[in-house]
Amino acid sequence: MELTLEQVQTGLQAGVKKAQEIKVPCSIAIVDSGRNLLGFYRLDGAVLASIETAQGKAYTARSMNMKTGDIMPLVQPGAPLYGMALTHRTPLIVFGGGAPISRNGQVAGAVGVAGGMVEQDEQIAEAVVKAISN
Amino acid sequence: MELTLEQVQTGLQAGVKKAQEIKVPCSIAIVDSGRNLLGFYRLDGAVLASIETAQGKAYTARSMNMKTGDIMPLVQPGAPLYGMALTHRTPLIVFGGGAPISRNGQVAGAVGVAGGMVEQDEQIAEAVVKAISN
Amino acid sequence: MELTLEQVQTGLQAGVKKAQEIKVPCSIAIVDSGRNLLGFYRLDGAVLASIETAQGKAYTARSMNMKTGDIMPLVQPGAPLYGMALTHRTPLIVFGGGAPISRNGQVAGAVGVAGGMVEQDEQIAEAVVKAISN
Amino acid sequence: MELTLEQVQTGLQAGVKKAQEIKVPCSIAIVDSGRNLLGFYRLDGAVLASIETAQGKAYTARSMNMKTGDIMPLVQPGAPLYGMALTHRTPLIVFGGGAPISRNGQVAGAVGVAGGMVEQDEQIAEAVVKAISN
Repeated sequence: MELTLEQVQTGLQAGVKKAQEIKVPCSIAIVDSGRNLLGFYRLDGAVLASIETAQGKAYTARSMNMKTGDIMPLVQPGAPLYGMALTHRTPLIVFGGGAPISRNGQVAGAVGVAGGMVEQDEQIAEAVVKAISN
Repeated sequence: MELTLEQVQTGLQAGVKKAQEIKVPCSIAIVDSGRNLLGFYRLDGAVLASIETAQGKAYTARSMNMKTGDIMPLVQPGAPLYGMALTHRTPLIVFGGGAPISRNGQVAGAVGVAGGMVEQDEQIAEAVVKAISN
Repeated sequence: MELTLEQVQTGLQAGVKKAQEIKVPCSIAIVDSGRNLLGFYRLDGAVLASIETAQGKAYTARSMNMKTGDIMPLVQPGAPLYGMALTHRTPLIVFGGGAPISRNGQVAGAVGVAGGMVEQDEQIAEAVVKAISN
Repeated sequence: MELTLEQVQTGLQAGVKKAQEIKVPCSIAIVDSGRNLLGFYRLDGAVLASIETAQGKAYTARSMNMKTGDIMPLVQPGAPLYGMALTHRTPLIVFGGGAPISRNGQVAGAVGVAGGMVEQDEQIAEAVVKAISN
């Protein structure tokens, strides 16, 4: 089952609410199970780099079915997946802010958040996941 | 003055309403005055090509400050701007569905819609413009 | 002999003067004999598409050592160079506004102007060429 | 408020003056708040790589609203944003020479300088910023 636009809007809105609560201007992107863009919001005042980075995090989280921050240690020099981040046409992003979204026990897509500190982006992504996943 | 997220949401929502009314699954993208993405919705059932095409139309409409369909006759073989569509790294899209958004007499961004027949995409883009422009 | 920055500035300034005189907000690009960018101005209010198009015209004019408008008839369907515009990594632009710049009987670079009607762009490009060529 | 051509010329000229003073042949690029090119000079004798690098630095500085050199420590192996530089279609440049330009308390664009040693590029970029920012 693909995510519906209604679910995407619910997720984006939950992200906006959390972002405003912790005062982090950011971009929020949601992709489907095929890693293709479903929805995107850029909040007022978010840096432009957040546009590409939020989308990259969502792409990465669904590519690996992992939170992006969890990929980080695996791709360091000397680690098992060193170099992996560059093997995709859209380079993988391996710091926090991306997370898979599950529905009925299956990964249905992913969210990516960028614009704040890594921990803030992760909090906002978590709010999105919580609002949509079941 | 840049478009706010609130204005972008209003515009996207007006596009969704029109798209549902005329039963056209599509993608809707809104960019700012610098051609950078502000907001994006993909409606349930829209073809994947609508993702890039909607964004390309918004990019084009702001690049030229014209409706994308109005560029079409200018780039035909024999016409003054023949070949122009290919001169950008993100190729310009010259069929209808993209339109500039003005605020206070200045172009503040643009919308692009893709997924339906050209005339349908244009109708939806017009609904977005009408909801945000002033 | 390569064009100097001083010559480039003189050329750009002559272009600005002509553009203001005929009231055409545009972009003006000057490339060297290797087709690489030497100088660029975007005038207040020029459409964003003029950025890429001005550079593309300068690139094209030096690629062919011809005014860009003179290439147009050669690349039409049925004409000798049909398809040629797409054979370059930066697609050639075959409508007016680009022109080679000569020094001491040799092509030393080219100028590209975009943002106005083709005839206006050509006038501005001519002013630049006249100010630098000898 | 977007930067005017007059401000861009003032900035470029300040950069040229500093570059000549410290004898560094370089390229200087200024982009607007949407990361789109406003002005560019290549000084006599600057290496060709300075063309893309100067523009990339200006693009990066505005993408992040940071001096490019300040991004460097953040993207090292083990650092929070490891891998980020490659997440943009135009890869971010994370060594010094790019800097945001502010007007009236807002980031209005950015400058990028390339061609010299990093510290020299930074000095020249600073001269540009100082001449335009207020």
